[in-house]
Amino acid sequence: MNFIEKLELAQQKNNSLLCVGLDPDIARLPQLCRESAEPFFHFNRALINATADLVCAYKPQIAHYAACGAEAELLATIRYINANYPDIPVILDAKRGDIGSTAEKYAIEAFERYQADAVTVNPYLGGDSLSPFLDYADKGVVILCRTSNPGGADLQGLEIGDEALYLKLARLAATSWNKNRNILLVVGATWPAELALVREVVGDIPLLVPGIGAQGGDVEAVLKAGLDQRGLGLVINSSRGIIYADPGAGFAEAARQAALELRDLINSFR
Amino acid sequence: MNFIEKLELAQQKNNSLLCVGLDPDIARLPQLCRESAEPFFHFNRALINATADLVCAYKPQIAHYAACGAEAELLATIRYINANYPDIPVILDAKRGDIGSTAEKYAIEAFERYQADAVTVNPYLGGDSLSPFLDYADKGVVILCRTSNPGGADLQGLEIGDEALYLKLARLAATSWNKNRNILLVVGATWPAELALVREVVGDIPLLVPGIGAQGGDVEAVLKAGLDQRGLGLVINSSRGIIYADPGAGFAEAARQAALELRDLINSFR
Repeated sequence: MNFIEKLELAQQKNNSLLCVGLDPDIARLPQLCRESAEPFFHFNRALINATADLVCAYKPQIAHYAACGAEAELLATIRYINANYPDIPVILDAKRGDIGSTAEKYAIEAFERYQADAVTVNPYLGGDSLSPFLDYADKGVVILCRTSNPGGADLQGLEIGDEALYLKLARLAATSWNKNRNILLVVGATWPAELALVREVVGDIPLLVPGIGAQGGDVEAVLKAGLDQRGLGLVINSSRGIIYADPGAGFAEAARQAALELRDLINSFR
Repeated sequence: MNFIEKLELAQQKNNSLLCVGLDPDIARLPQLCRESAEPFFHFNRALINATADLVCAYKPQIAHYAACGAEAELLATIRYINANYPDIPVILDAKRGDIGSTAEKYAIEAFERYQADAVTVNPYLGGDSLSPFLDYADKGVVILCRTSNPGGADLQGLEIGDEALYLKLARLAATSWNKNRNILLVVGATWPAELALVREVVGDIPLLVPGIGAQGGDVEAVLKAGLDQRGLGLVINSSRGIIYADPGAGFAEAARQAALELRDLINSFR
């Protein structure tokens, strides 16, 4: 089973397009997690147990672990999901990009060391830089296309002939780069009009959509713009709005409630 | 003292534009390193001791450490340089790129956890994604511009009006993004004509040039195209050609010899 099949099965099983971002920040963790020997893993495990029947994927962002040397807790988190909820895919959000033998090392990091099902990558170095990731045919490769931040337009929005760079990229990703049918694209929730243009270009390729909630993206607009012809094709990420729904001892139950509400809100527009 | 000042002092002191890439691969290490409890650190320490009077910088590539969980050896390597050769700056080659609070975490990873003097970053997410790095005014931020691989042209070479994307980027980097005068750009040795165009656009901004040696870049062409008006402004990286100059017990002496020859070859064209 390849990544996109695994993702779609999880979407069906949990009736969910929601992905929860596992981005722990020590300053924002509940007291009882901070006192643990493995604060990030303690926090994540409780969040996972509380939401695993409501999501289609988890997305740990690696910088949150790398900033403080918590690689072991990232690994423990992914192992925990793989062991206890093997139907839920893990997208390692790392935005890697390099060439040749170095790109191979990054692919090993994501897929072999951390056993992630998919990894986010940056396309600025071109198609050959992505091959070492794409060659893992059963894994997902999630390419940045149009990011949710205002500065995303600095390069992504530049006009190449009659269309913007991010659309040229979407065409490349949907055609010549996608030999193993394992590409997904990142398009921010903050640009629903551009999300619609990307959907037009890429057919049924799944889109990972950050920027709901804290960043101001609108759920209805995202669904209208981004669903594919089957009513699928979206993985809508929320991190802070779910994992920090309550700062105290009830954080896991509050996260469940927030995830349930967002899943159902998303489904109400499908 | 900011990064570019530190770099230029090292260039003067060692009469060198050479940067050595510390990219250890367990399969290519000499037997005596492989048998060590810290094979990468053992290898790097010997290379550093053998070349510290010949280089203007060291550039460890983080994927080589991350692929096998050797973060502690990367940290030991950078600490070793900082403690024993504090005049030689360390460029952490990580090609990071993300937005907002996540970019802040990556900046903490590079500058606080690893105590690097500079880090390589990917500009695809735009100027605001680079601010958390650029805000460390004493640190160097080395932005990918025109990479050495053939696929680099897929995006970087696209024409925006009358010039290529990588030149638009170079203009942005040299002007509105460079408030703290701590930007450098990456331009591959494999494209000397494009290197000359970048130099024309960016004034005295230093250029980090990979792609000499194993990737086929020509030293004379790079120097002609890339030197600034002061005969400086280049950091020419070699990794495999130096660190694997000899696969046996004499690897450090062979690395010294290879570094000496390349430094002098570079200087012969200044």
